[in-house]
Amino acid sequence: MQKIAILGSTGSIGTNALRVVSNFPDRFRVTVLSTNSNIELLLDQVRRFQPKAVSIVDRHKIGQFKKRCNINLKVYEGAQGLCEVLKDIEIDTLVVGIVGSSALLPILTALERVKKIALANKEALVMAGSIIMKRAAQNKVEILPVDSEHSAIFQCLNVKHIEDIKKIYLTGSGGPLLNTAKSRFKDISVNEAINHPKWNMGKKISVDSATMMNKGLEVIEAHWLFGVAVERIEVLIHPQAIVHSMVEFIDGSVLAQLGFCDMKLPIQYALTYPKRLDSDVRRVDFSRVKNISFHKPDFGKFPCIEIAYEVAHKGGTYPSVLNAANEVAVAEFLDNQIKFIDIPKVIKKVLGLHKGIRNPGLEDILEADRWARRKTRELLGF
Amino acid sequence: MQKIAILGSTGSIGTNALRVVSNFPDRFRVTVLSTNSNIELLLDQVRRFQPKAVSIVDRHKIGQFKKRCNINLKVYEGAQGLCEVLKDIEIDTLVVGIVGSSALLPILTALERVKKIALANKEALVMAGSIIMKRAAQNKVEILPVDSEHSAIFQCLNVKHIEDIKKIYLTGSGGPLLNTAKSRFKDISVNEAINHPKWNMGKKISVDSATMMNKGLEVIEAHWLFGVAVERIEVLIHPQAIVHSMVEFIDGSVLAQLGFCDMKLPIQYALTYPKRLDSDVRRVDFSRVKNISFHKPDFGKFPCIEIAYEVAHKGGTYPSVLNAANEVAVAEFLDNQIKFIDIPKVIKKVLGLHKGIRNPGLEDILEADRWARRKTRELLGF
Repeated sequence: MQKIAILGSTGSIGTNALRVVSNFPDRFRVTVLSTNSNIELLLDQVRRFQPKAVSIVDRHKIGQFKKRCNINLKVYEGAQGLCEVLKDIEIDTLVVGIVGSSALLPILTALERVKKIALANKEALVMAGSIIMKRAAQNKVEILPVDSEHSAIFQCLNVKHIEDIKKIYLTGSGGPLLNTAKSRFKDISVNEAINHPKWNMGKKISVDSATMMNKGLEVIEAHWLFGVAVERIEVLIHPQAIVHSMVEFIDGSVLAQLGFCDMKLPIQYALTYPKRLDSDVRRVDFSRVKNISFHKPDFGKFPCIEIAYEVAHKGGTYPSVLNAANEVAVAEFLDNQIKFIDIPKVIKKVLGLHKGIRNPGLEDILEADRWARRKTRELLGF
Repeated sequence: MQKIAILGSTGSIGTNALRVVSNFPDRFRVTVLSTNSNIELLLDQVRRFQPKAVSIVDRHKIGQFKKRCNINLKVYEGAQGLCEVLKDIEIDTLVVGIVGSSALLPILTALERVKKIALANKEALVMAGSIIMKRAAQNKVEILPVDSEHSAIFQCLNVKHIEDIKKIYLTGSGGPLLNTAKSRFKDISVNEAINHPKWNMGKKISVDSATMMNKGLEVIEAHWLFGVAVERIEVLIHPQAIVHSMVEFIDGSVLAQLGFCDMKLPIQYALTYPKRLDSDVRRVDFSRVKNISFHKPDFGKFPCIEIAYEVAHKGGTYPSVLNAANEVAVAEFLDNQIKFIDIPKVIKKVLGLHKGIRNPGLEDILEADRWARRKTRELLGF
């Protein structure tokens, strides 16, 4: 049970903090509340959270509060009351929801007493950042930023656990045919299909980008790499290709990785992980980034994504078949033997003919691959 | 020295991998290169990287290669050569840069031999994800995604080190006056100033958002919280307020945290850290997110940011003075005693009059605060 003191509990941060606390009554126990002068709301909060003590800065309100409060608790008075209450009452975590420099001394007091400070106040740090941070380090007090921007940075800097993942957004630029009319798809040439607008890649993956099978494969890939159910992986079209995917956590926070489109970046990271090293990769000039957008893929125009999702759900040997049929079809397309629109058609047919094996062994998977290649060529008339 | 094998070294992934390797000759040693049939490029790569072995899938090219290669190395042939070379040669990290299912068996071979697999191939996982991941876990082989999307997710999931940070982008919506003409600033009312378009906050911070002093304070706050030099912290205006700040790492990768504007989110995270818990915070519907943009703040219109940067550079007691002067000025503005445009004016004057102390103690800081409050009121004529 985490014992929590909230300085400024009647303010914007404080009331939001209490909303959070209310959602987890078995995790948090509010031991201290405080207000500048909002007695009305404080009385209400006292009734709901039953703290051990309150602190009221405006001394003129003390009498009124005491008269109307029929719960047994200590009442601290004035600005120094904010410090005194932190010395007297048992607290694990202090939420600093008061604005301005008046937070500084309570923070310094808390640094001698508490384990964690959830800090929404910035002025104290602006004033005495070196002192606060030094004492926090000495006393091993964690300072956890609440300011939204700093919380963002802090979150980007910390470990995530798989069970914390709600959803993965797999972004894709949409490939070379994103804005091509579907009526033209029957005439797409190899050169058109491999002319990717953002990434310079091999031919096969370029065609996969044009059909958007690439995203479908990536959904399955992500499922295995990260242990996240397929239902939780969503493809988002993002034509600017600056955001390279996002993770939504169970609390609603989303982390995204951004950067210039250069394969050296992920390669280098894979090689130097967990360290990072300098690179000559071009940087995104964010001051010029405009019109970043996301939208759902058009499954009608790009059926391969939907096919891959279905296959991912079926599991077993189906993904092996999907992949084999796709490889054969793409190779034949690149060899000018079939049309662009034949790719999804033949894949769908092969999948429809497959008798899947659940929990396949390696040999089953290899056999499904061989079968699918044979079947695809057969259906294509080779 | 990390010994690296690159399967598909003449392809798109492979050539990029070699570019990375070239940049860190004292970290990486290439021991294996491979090609399907691009002998020309392989010969060139062999000369530059001097591997212990090569693997050539297309058997028709072997003779030609051997004739032209005057470096002493082993040559493996055909598809099975890709596996044999991985069994024979000492390798720490395998880069799988070959496309298609032909990567599966080499990957399974590598899982018995190497420490890490940098995986650019997705088909093998699509085919046999459960097997690959199980063997990787059993044999404690790290599988590091190279696919840009999966690398993005992986990076979002891992620990960051402070020395890896290149830059922090502190985003801000721009506040209620972002699109108000500067000529109107002299007449800004309190209600206009506290009418924040995105965040529901207290009055003081709302005014700070209107003057954009808020961002200035946050720059200093970030400097202390994260130990990052002020020069490395850049303010970006981001009117849609979906991205809540970004960290650029030394390798050019950027992590961003995104979410709906709701203070419950960072509060809850601060309280539950390092765990995440479910929340009722509204989720961003990314499929409808359009026109995300960033631009530099207009220092002419919002001088407070520039003032804060100057103060941050000066350090000592100046930040304390900045904050105190700002608090007084904002309070007087909220009390309708001064005009909106007087806020930066008086802060600048007070700072100009201050004789700063380097490496101040707590008492120096408190004294600077008191002095600045007195001086600000004096200059404002109270």
